[in-house]
Formats: sequence, structure tokens, C-alpha cells
Amino acid sequence: MNNTTAINDDERYMRMALDEAHRALEEDEVPIGAVVICKGTVVGRGHNLTEALSDVTAHAEMQAITAAAQTLGGKYLTDCTLYVTVEPCVMCAGAIGWSQLPRIVYGASDPKRGYSRLGGNPFHPKATVKAGVLADECSALMKEFFAGKR
Amino acid sequence: MNNTTAINDDERYMRMALDEAHRALEEDEVPIGAVVICKGTVVGRGHNLTEALSDVTAHAEMQAITAAAQTLGGKYLTDCTLYVTVEPCVMCAGAIGWSQLPRIVYGASDPKRGYSRLGGNPFHPKATVKAGVLADECSALMKEFFAGKR
Repeated sequence: MNNTTAINDDERYMRMALDEAHRALEEDEVPIGAVVICKGTVVGRGHNLTEALSDVTAHAEMQAITAAAQTLGGKYLTDCTLYVTVEPCVMCAGAIGWSQLPRIVYGASDPKRGYSRLGGNPFHPKATVKAGVLADECSALMKEFFAGKR
Repeated sequence: MNNTTAINDDERYMRMALDEAHRALEEDEVPIGAVVICKGTVVGRGHNLTEALSDVTAHAEMQAITAAAQTLGGKYLTDCTLYVTVEPCVMCAGAIGWSQLPRIVYGASDPKRGYSRLGGNPFHPKATVKAGVLADECSALMKEFFAGKR
């Protein structure tokens, strides 16, 4: 009998995004991380740096998307999947749309700040979204951060 | 009799945004420009650079917001007004919301890509929006660009 747990790719890549989120936590930033995967390879990664850079646009997804475009040498990420630990905000959802990312996988939902609080689809019309991958771990990190701020 | 035309501040600042849009046009970028004004002073400016930087996030507003935060030494632009030649897209509207900009003035509407195609308010709840300032000039620049691309 083989006891090896089959860990699917989405969980594996979400763990990489969680590693980025942990880095943010260590830097006292809102702990959100993201990676962009293209054909099994990490082409972009990032974590929230809004405090360090004093820049509201320095979200994890924005940096991962910018990094992926630099790696691939083109601004459209049509063969990629974005993994992010928390539901993207409206800004990041808009950036994801512009990048033409065809697949978005996120962990924890964010009813207050997430893109889905606005109506309509900000992504490419054919893009698919998978929510809830390692959601408990992604969410726990956020709770830990905000509990420490009280 | 004083023949001096009273040009209101909104038009004056929109002309600065138009200057930025003209720079974009000269660089063969989608001609959109933005400035951030704080108490009568330009604290941030930018024009679209998505082609030059190969980065979908390099919109005029994003750069103006990032520049303003650097100038002011803080990421919240609570005493500022953003002027942009075209209605902000969803991404930029989200960034404007995060920055807590209390006033947004734009020129031409963008029914296809503008934030208002999505429902809800992406801005600070108390933010005000003024549309249509020098709209014809802002729009003419866009038409000139896209006509040249056909």
C-alpha cells in the first residue's frame, strides 16, 4: 500500500504563495502572497509590500504579474495561472484582467475587500476561477496578523 | 473690460494631464495622462507606459498615485485630487480607492473599459467624481491613436 498523499498541483503552488505570505508576515505587512505559474514553472512571485514601499499599489498579485511579464518578455500571461492566498481586490482583479490570465486560484475569500463585492466580471471573459484552496491556512495567517494589530 | 478668460482650476489641471497624454502619444502608447494635485501643487504625474515597460499595470493613474505617495511620504492621498484624461479602468479605480483619494476628475468616458461598467463604488465612500472635463480633447487624442493603429 502506498501511503503517499497525492498532493495536487493547485495545493503545491498555493503553498508557494503561502511561503510568500509568510515573508510578508515576517516583514509586518498584511500577509498575502502570490505566484504565477507557466507550464509548471514559477515565472513570477510576490508578497504584499504596501508598508515597506509606502505604495498602495504594491500588492502581492501586482508584483507577481509584473515579475511574470518581465520573465516571459511579454505583458500578456495567456499561458499562466495565478495563485494568491486571498481573494484579489478590485485593483488586482483589474490587473489580472488586463494580463489576460486564463486561470486564477485563490485561498481565503475576502467579502469586504475582494473583487466579488462589485458586480460583473473583471477577468478575461474565458478565465476560470477556483476558490478555497488551502483556505484555512491562508485565512489563519490573516487572522494572526490582524489579531496582533489590536 | 477684462477679456481674460477665467479658466477654472479643474481645466487647468486637466491640461497638465493632457500634456502627459501627449507624451504617451509621442511614445506610441495609449494616450492617457494623469496628475495628482495636493493643495494647488503637482505631487505626482504619469502617462501610460504599458508598452515601454511591458507591464499591464503601468497605467497613467498608477504611476501618478505611486509618485504622489513618494512625494508626500505617505501612501494615503487624503488631501489630493486626481485628474486623468480618460475614465479609470477597474484596476486604477481600485488603486484610487486604496489611496483614499477624496476627489477624482476625469475627461472622456470609457464605456468599454471604464470602472463604471462594473457595479458598486470602488472609491472611498465619501469620494466625489467629476466627469467630462475637456472630454472632447481627451477623447480626440484616443481616437487619433486608435485610428493610426488600423
